[in-house]
Amino acid sequence: MSSASAQVPAPAPAPAGHPAGSGIPVLGVLSPFARIAILGTIGVSALAIALDFGLHVEGAAVFVVSATAILGLAWIVGLSTERLGAITGPQVGGVLNATFGNIAELIIAFFALQAGLITVVKASLTGSIIGNLLLVLGAAILAGGLKNGLQTFSQRIAGSNAALLVLAAIGLFIPAVFAVSGEATQGQRVEESVLIALVLMVGYGLALVWQFTNPERTLGGHGDPEGHAGPAWTGRTAVGVLLMAAALLAVLSEILVASIEPFIEQFGLSQLFVGVILIPTIGNLAEHLVAVQLAYKNKIEFSMAVAFGSSMQVALFVAPVLVLLGVVVGQPMDLVFPPLEIAAVGAAVAISALVALDGESNWLEGALLMLIYLIIAISFFELRLPAL
Amino acid sequence: MSSASAQVPAPAPAPAGHPAGSGIPVLGVLSPFARIAILGTIGVSALAIALDFGLHVEGAAVFVVSATAILGLAWIVGLSTERLGAITGPQVGGVLNATFGNIAELIIAFFALQAGLITVVKASLTGSIIGNLLLVLGAAILAGGLKNGLQTFSQRIAGSNAALLVLAAIGLFIPAVFAVSGEATQGQRVEESVLIALVLMVGYGLALVWQFTNPERTLGGHGDPEGHAGPAWTGRTAVGVLLMAAALLAVLSEILVASIEPFIEQFGLSQLFVGVILIPTIGNLAEHLVAVQLAYKNKIEFSMAVAFGSSMQVALFVAPVLVLLGVVVGQPMDLVFPPLEIAAVGAAVAISALVALDGESNWLEGALLMLIYLIIAISFFELRLPAL
Amino acid sequence: MSSASAQVPAPAPAPAGHPAGSGIPVLGVLSPFARIAILGTIGVSALAIALDFGLHVEGAAVFVVSATAILGLAWIVGLSTERLGAITGPQVGGVLNATFGNIAELIIAFFALQAGLITVVKASLTGSIIGNLLLVLGAAILAGGLKNGLQTFSQRIAGSNAALLVLAAIGLFIPAVFAVSGEATQGQRVEESVLIALVLMVGYGLALVWQFTNPERTLGGHGDPEGHAGPAWTGRTAVGVLLMAAALLAVLSEILVASIEPFIEQFGLSQLFVGVILIPTIGNLAEHLVAVQLAYKNKIEFSMAVAFGSSMQVALFVAPVLVLLGVVVGQPMDLVFPPLEIAAVGAAVAISALVALDGESNWLEGALLMLIYLIIAISFFELRLPAL
Repeated sequence: MSSASAQVPAPAPAPAGHPAGSGIPVLGVLSPFARIAILGTIGVSALAIALDFGLHVEGAAVFVVSATAILGLAWIVGLSTERLGAITGPQVGGVLNATFGNIAELIIAFFALQAGLITVVKASLTGSIIGNLLLVLGAAILAGGLKNGLQTFSQRIAGSNAALLVLAAIGLFIPAVFAVSGEATQGQRVEESVLIALVLMVGYGLALVWQFTNPERTLGGHGDPEGHAGPAWTGRTAVGVLLMAAALLAVLSEILVASIEPFIEQFGLSQLFVGVILIPTIGNLAEHLVAVQLAYKNKIEFSMAVAFGSSMQVALFVAPVLVLLGVVVGQPMDLVFPPLEIAAVGAAVAISALVALDGESNWLEGALLMLIYLIIAISFFELRLPAL
Repeated sequence: MSSASAQVPAPAPAPAGHPAGSGIPVLGVLSPFARIAILGTIGVSALAIALDFGLHVEGAAVFVVSATAILGLAWIVGLSTERLGAITGPQVGGVLNATFGNIAELIIAFFALQAGLITVVKASLTGSIIGNLLLVLGAAILAGGLKNGLQTFSQRIAGSNAALLVLAAIGLFIPAVFAVSGEATQGQRVEESVLIALVLMVGYGLALVWQFTNPERTLGGHGDPEGHAGPAWTGRTAVGVLLMAAALLAVLSEILVASIEPFIEQFGLSQLFVGVILIPTIGNLAEHLVAVQLAYKNKIEFSMAVAFGSSMQVALFVAPVLVLLGVVVGQPMDLVFPPLEIAAVGAAVAISALVALDGESNWLEGALLMLIYLIIAISFFELRLPAL
Repeated sequence: MSSASAQVPAPAPAPAGHPAGSGIPVLGVLSPFARIAILGTIGVSALAIALDFGLHVEGAAVFVVSATAILGLAWIVGLSTERLGAITGPQVGGVLNATFGNIAELIIAFFALQAGLITVVKASLTGSIIGNLLLVLGAAILAGGLKNGLQTFSQRIAGSNAALLVLAAIGLFIPAVFAVSGEATQGQRVEESVLIALVLMVGYGLALVWQFTNPERTLGGHGDPEGHAGPAWTGRTAVGVLLMAAALLAVLSEILVASIEPFIEQFGLSQLFVGVILIPTIGNLAEHLVAVQLAYKNKIEFSMAVAFGSSMQVALFVAPVLVLLGVVVGQPMDLVFPPLEIAAVGAAVAISALVALDGESNWLEGALLMLIYLIIAISFFELRLPAL
């Protein structure tokens, strides 16, 4: 069945009541909201490009416009990945989701790395994990709890996912602890970080293998959330949309990164605040909204799957890839994170593991997770540390 | 029912076998033990006041006598709060308990703050959490385990409470971690601590709302421990006793605080040891004995509720209130705790969460909790750090 | 029954199909493999002694040969302890196992202590805990998971054991945290460490009492793993074998320790790497293989019992004994471990507790535990710290 549908992907007919389309097949199958959002994203992207290349505007305006465009593009990447996943079946779809899930973040981080903004890159990794575990999971649990009351889930599966997450976080942060004690040179640190990046990627590969062979043990793996099939594109259309959105994402990420430093100066922000709070939000907002929506529909396990899975991916895939890319582009990045980032991630991982282990969630837990995020954001904002 | 009884609170008749009373209605309804304890407390309070104001004695003698009086007064405050709670019903009673539960501690800390003993104040917050989670919970689990064998409780409810406690502790200690990395001035630290204090109090408010709307999800919330109705006072008598005990508590706290420094010098103790070990014991001993008693009666959930609830209150209510009061009285206190206090609280929270998560307790766990407390006490004692 | 069999220990007849014996009763009752292993161990021991005392060889060769001999001797000690346990019944057997379980490690550490290699001794304690919780438990879970699929176990019992382990680890590491803050002299540190060592040993005594009185609450306590009866020796033979193996162990440990420094110089290793990674592996390999074998036979609870129990023993018995012995032999050792060792143990304890708490294990968890061990080993290897 699934291989047959992969060869002859028959696009689902547009739902009755929707106009037959605007002549463009890509948009024709979409809901009016999605159509407007896609067209809007294209418009904002064009504006950002014009501001930067045409008008040579700098700073806040470019930052805000390109950030908005990236929000939309990340969402479009998500749509096409979902569609390809629905066409190719859960196995390949899982790989696609795993690969493209944090693509926006990876692209932004790559350009920031190339521009030498290593503090921002590391901070964005930290911020992505914190954002997923505190802000997104918190908002999902809060919304789900207010709507549905006490929400329960499999303690064992959630606990097992939490254990994997803790393992990933510890692997990622061990070099930093060792850096505190050691007298290693920067070269040795990078050497060690490359070795560890390779080990982490082995771990990621094993985790993927395990998920494919044990779908029923994965959070939310035993069921399919509504609306996760994506729009009714053909496979070819979906691939085309994915490639174009990714290409545009790359252009806009470069624009965004170039505007970070003027933006920081204009508002007196710290690189850490931008890296920990703003960048991850820009790269992940679309995914975040989905997680909250799922919790609201009483599918809290899927929300946890998104938050935990995305965090694990950052620790085991995005971070190691950036270490290796750093060596390639001549901006060697080690995995030695500053203490306050480690503490923030440690806290986020510990709390979310605990919340998972008791097998149930309520709005108070969600609200407190968000308050912790707020406290961390205040702390990073107040810091105004000079670039490390 | 409960509102009716609130309007016409009929005092329960004195139990048969007890003498009809000593002519004072406040004491007449009490058991002989309680009567002696109250009269003794009044006597010791008078002695402390005489020593301080009349004889101008200083140091150890005043410290010991006023500490003894405070032990008794905190117990009387507890009695009258319980009675008011029984009269007004569980909802209002919960607020009363939450507000007056740590009142002795809050008053002592306030006077210590006013006297500029900021190291002692911070240490007493730390010590209160450690004492609740290691000493009190340990003693309760040990006593309960020796008497009743293996004690089990709802893993989910205990786990959920543990998660809230971890959230509270993390919120409280984030500023300290950030202070290590930052180059903030003392003014900026206080500014940040005030902001965070406000966030913590929002968290406390939310936790209270949640407990009132979900009493059955609170540890020990689904049932009433014996003897929690307090003495058979009328509402008016209970309010009167509460106000008088609180007023006396304030006077004696001021005396106690004034005697801390001579006491420290006389015995060569450190401010940290007094703050972490002695002050919290003085403020909480009455509550602690109740927790142990409940475990002995095989009501281990109530013991955990006392230990967890009291710790959470210190983190989310007492500490933020002191930060705000510090600004008011011109002794600004930040929330930047020294590393060893953070480590001690972190250890205490982690252990008690683990003990809660396995859903059962035995005397060995209790004994080990108490040994950890002993090790921490030895360490603080050996430190003899100069005042920070 | 059990006391009767203790008085008249009838050796089980040698299994049919095995030759009646080589004339030496000690070897006659053994399987061919065990016989060869014992003879080989004796031969290698003789070689090591000859190399050291006879030929005055130094460095790597002596290190490797004596390490090999110790591997074998530790296994022989295990055999005779098991046999004595089977003869004397579970109560006394438990004490024997608890006492002799880490005897090889204790003897090596003692000679290293006497030689003033305090960094190596502390590192070997750390390494023993890490090795048990990450490498051994990881290998056991991986092997068990690949062979048997998802393995489940009692969440409560495993959780309770994890809680005890966390308690032990925290007790052990508190002095280090305090040392960071304090300005204590080395003398004061040793004084505090001796006090804390005594408290830890009280905890160990209580844990033994608890295990004897609650065998059914101990991991793997409700059943007997196959082959845990040891070879069919008489009590007298077993005692004789035990004493001779222990004596030989002492001789070879002294040889091993003397060869550590030349070995380190020859290969450019750090004392930390040798202490954390090599020494614990030499002392524990036999025990480790048993744990993996048990998991492979789908007896994962026994594997966890070995890993958790051995770690607890190191924290509550081996470490305190070494502190006291250090004072006796004039090489005072405190319990102030370097930060990276604390972080590594903290990580190992936290992960293994989480893995235990979800009540099930799969090969991915095992693989990730081993990867974390690999990352820690890489970090210690890269460090090449000078001796502290």
